[in-house]
Amino acid sequence: MTLYAPVKQNRSLFDKHRSILDRAIEAVHKREFFAQYPEMPSPQVYGETAEADQKKTFEAQLGSKFDRLKQSHDTWLTSDEQSPYTQQKLSVSYPSFTDVIKYIECAQEAWSDWKKTDTQTRAGVLIESLERMKSMFHEVAFSTMHTTGQAYMMSFQASGPHAADRALEAIAIGYQELTRFPQQLKWEKPAGKVTLKLEKFSTTVPKGLSLAIGCATFPIWNTLPGVFASLITGNPVIVKPHPKAIYPIAIVVALLQEVLVEHGFSANLVMLAPDTEDKPITRELAENPAIKIIDFTGSSSFGRYVESLPGKVTFTEKAGVNSIIIDSVADLAAMAQNVAFSISLYSGQMCTAPQNFFIPKDGIKAGSEHVPFENVAKAIVDAVKGLASHPKAGPAVLGAIQSEATHKRIGEAKDLGGKVLLESQAVTNPEFPNIRSASPIIIELPTSAKEVFQQEMFGPIAFIIATADTKESLALASAGAKEQGAISCGAYTVDDTTMETIAEVMAEAGTAVSFNLTGGIYVNQNAGFSDFHVTGGNPAGNASLTDPEFVLKRFTRVQSRVNG
Amino acid sequence: MTLYAPVKQNRSLFDKHRSILDRAIEAVHKREFFAQYPEMPSPQVYGETAEADQKKTFEAQLGSKFDRLKQSHDTWLTSDEQSPYTQQKLSVSYPSFTDVIKYIECAQEAWSDWKKTDTQTRAGVLIESLERMKSMFHEVAFSTMHTTGQAYMMSFQASGPHAADRALEAIAIGYQELTRFPQQLKWEKPAGKVTLKLEKFSTTVPKGLSLAIGCATFPIWNTLPGVFASLITGNPVIVKPHPKAIYPIAIVVALLQEVLVEHGFSANLVMLAPDTEDKPITRELAENPAIKIIDFTGSSSFGRYVESLPGKVTFTEKAGVNSIIIDSVADLAAMAQNVAFSISLYSGQMCTAPQNFFIPKDGIKAGSEHVPFENVAKAIVDAVKGLASHPKAGPAVLGAIQSEATHKRIGEAKDLGGKVLLESQAVTNPEFPNIRSASPIIIELPTSAKEVFQQEMFGPIAFIIATADTKESLALASAGAKEQGAISCGAYTVDDTTMETIAEVMAEAGTAVSFNLTGGIYVNQNAGFSDFHVTGGNPAGNASLTDPEFVLKRFTRVQSRVNG
Repeated sequence: MTLYAPVKQNRSLFDKHRSILDRAIEAVHKREFFAQYPEMPSPQVYGETAEADQKKTFEAQLGSKFDRLKQSHDTWLTSDEQSPYTQQKLSVSYPSFTDVIKYIECAQEAWSDWKKTDTQTRAGVLIESLERMKSMFHEVAFSTMHTTGQAYMMSFQASGPHAADRALEAIAIGYQELTRFPQQLKWEKPAGKVTLKLEKFSTTVPKGLSLAIGCATFPIWNTLPGVFASLITGNPVIVKPHPKAIYPIAIVVALLQEVLVEHGFSANLVMLAPDTEDKPITRELAENPAIKIIDFTGSSSFGRYVESLPGKVTFTEKAGVNSIIIDSVADLAAMAQNVAFSISLYSGQMCTAPQNFFIPKDGIKAGSEHVPFENVAKAIVDAVKGLASHPKAGPAVLGAIQSEATHKRIGEAKDLGGKVLLESQAVTNPEFPNIRSASPIIIELPTSAKEVFQQEMFGPIAFIIATADTKESLALASAGAKEQGAISCGAYTVDDTTMETIAEVMAEAGTAVSFNLTGGIYVNQNAGFSDFHVTGGNPAGNASLTDPEFVLKRFTRVQSRVNG
Repeated sequence: MTLYAPVKQNRSLFDKHRSILDRAIEAVHKREFFAQYPEMPSPQVYGETAEADQKKTFEAQLGSKFDRLKQSHDTWLTSDEQSPYTQQKLSVSYPSFTDVIKYIECAQEAWSDWKKTDTQTRAGVLIESLERMKSMFHEVAFSTMHTTGQAYMMSFQASGPHAADRALEAIAIGYQELTRFPQQLKWEKPAGKVTLKLEKFSTTVPKGLSLAIGCATFPIWNTLPGVFASLITGNPVIVKPHPKAIYPIAIVVALLQEVLVEHGFSANLVMLAPDTEDKPITRELAENPAIKIIDFTGSSSFGRYVESLPGKVTFTEKAGVNSIIIDSVADLAAMAQNVAFSISLYSGQMCTAPQNFFIPKDGIKAGSEHVPFENVAKAIVDAVKGLASHPKAGPAVLGAIQSEATHKRIGEAKDLGGKVLLESQAVTNPEFPNIRSASPIIIELPTSAKEVFQQEMFGPIAFIIATADTKESLALASAGAKEQGAISCGAYTVDDTTMETIAEVMAEAGTAVSFNLTGGIYVNQNAGFSDFHVTGGNPAGNASLTDPEFVLKRFTRVQSRVNG
């Protein structure tokens, strides 16, 4: 006799991918370097003709129906997607439903087998989807580039291997938690002359229909962890991408549907629910009582709305104000180069991009010298200028500006007050003459201008703020994190005690600090399997990628007992 | 160099109790039988004179100041506590503050060292408190008996060893999660010709001030898990007991304060905040923005209020409607004896006590015979009657009725409609002539009387409902759990397929099922380290004792990086 027997068990994919899963679980717990998917688009790894072939696939897709999805639908929706590089519409259309409730009904109906199969079967199907995604990383990259405005290399890395690693991480931690306690056990309690005996059976019950609300800048990276966390824990997912960035995630949804169907599950377990800016469907989906789980990346105001919806488990990543605290440096130029890259990377359109640079007004120690405030600021400004104006590195690092709204914000930033240390300019890109681009603007502000710098100015807008001392720098960075949220923080100091204080105070504000970064590691970057992304401990988000809570909240554990 | 160095590290208590912790962590994960604290009040275990000595302590405490607490206070509050056995006031007074805000201020002030010490130090202090509690289990029992109305043996077990085991379980799972990922590690990423290197440091930041709101029936058992979960994760706790059941938990708070102070921490890390029914302080405490975590046991309406408070992490256990589904039995008498005990134990005042008995109207298979519905009902009624009227077992099992409100509810139950199969009577107790007592009332209701049986009737009130068949029984049990919540469910069936169906359907309603219990195991009982108490998957509560979520939500993980 057994209770909670799984249905549609399939160990073939699980056996095939067992070693990947085992390594991922080990990596998650050791948090040392691990990457299942190599981040460089190397032809040796991904195939000699992969890039050229997939470029053709991408180009053929433009202007036509995205017909790879196997989900139910009653119409085709032509998206608003537009390339920030060409400013041309992609004109891709996606299968969709006229009535939003149909997504809910189809996903609910698809649920039964997935809910009742076992963790091994789910893990096998999900890892197989990621393995197949490997052979699409270049199309993923082209579609990411031409929706988000990321440069090609970043598009490849962020939407391809890095996102797939984050998804694998969610599978690993999900597998670990789902199988953490015995499914079946004998319990024997000595009670005087007799022994009381029970047999116990355990199951995990998925919470229910999951909604993944995507963003325009990281349509795969920010969406995949929630989608895979919900799927490994047995929940169907409706993916509602940003209307301006559907194509990249549609590729992944199509792969998931393909593997699901091949293994006897319904394609509708993961549905793409595209919409347009004119006729948004997010609120109608989110408010439906059948939606039990919501993953959201986007604005603070919409994030707060999501968090306030009654009866839902929510995982949010919202806006934040990220700071760099400069106390002292070993090498001024190395610091300046590093932070210049962080400001410039994807034109500051990363949730981890630094915005506020706090520097003591009396200057800092740099190596054996004392450097005045103005010179520290100038070193950063010069480094940004040098990078942005570099004919090759400039466009490759800065990419394009995703939205007209961000572009407008950059243009208007010079009127925010303060002293403009570096003006924003168009970044010319010989390959794309019509690119929507803008190099960083850097403005010096007094500490009194809190209403300007203690809010997120999304895009390549940086403020340099002269503080009384590092103590004030830290107080401002901490206040920004506590009040507005923060996803990253950088600090430069050669003094151990100062380092400890900064780490402690920012930890209380739910913010991890990256100290003294120079060379090839940047404050914006978070490594899968090692760095937790967002802490959940300040207003920038209520969840952390990918910690145990991120999967535990998606299911209920039930353990029954049989007299034995 | 190290970040997040702990303060006031003390390994002496940790080393002393290391083996207890290790065994507890192992037990939590194996979920086999384990008990650190033997449940029988054996003189060999707890001391030859323990019971007599502590009875004297208890009697001396009545009518006087409870002066064992080391916390700050500005006044003494004489409680409303009254013994359900003697209907006399206990007249104990407790140190308290006139202004509620003072508890918050004192607990906040006490926080700093505890927040920054390490998990080992916290675990040592907490286990030492439990070990000292052992020598007070009899006083704990007397005070529980004379506040809750539980019989002496149950008072001893539930408030003593069982509660201490649940607290140890919370420490164990907390320790496991807090130390799950490395505190310090070297991360090396090969990047072409160079290797990128970072040193990473991790800390856990407690969420903040915790409020534990107790109930009148299980003042220790239901309070300890939350208190210990908050403390192991570094949060100060304000314990707000039910105004009618302060004394038992005050003993434990005093022990915690004693050990904390001995090891250099502030007594105010765990504060008792007593109140009276006339002048309740719970809402004022709960709504204070400094309170970040709330553990609550009590009514559904107050529980929903707690859950709705913005900006708090809440763990609730509310009301529920527990069912017994009777499909078929091997032995009618054995089933009847078992459920009769479950109805009668502490006069149905357990959150796990069964209320609704669903039996097919055409009767059931019992062994090789077919037994008509009426006879099944009669077997249960007779067993309850026999137990309640047994001169020794009756008072020992039923105990007393905690509140006047419950007593009144029992008295009025005969007017609920349906057919009274067994009337409630006073249970005479030779030792306590003034006892407030009432034997179970059993009423037969039609399935149409949902508005009566699909709500919690707290106390010894049971309904026997004739259903079309087991399918309808299950549908009603499931609907009750989904709509009103359920903490337990019992089922009797000799058919494996029926058993599987019941387990599946109730799991979807977030309810564990106990099958075919006979002899010395009852549906009401949940074993520490093995049975999860409450699933969090239906309206009876949003948390589960003691699963990883129960501790994870109480802290934030922060991992910083240093260029290396």
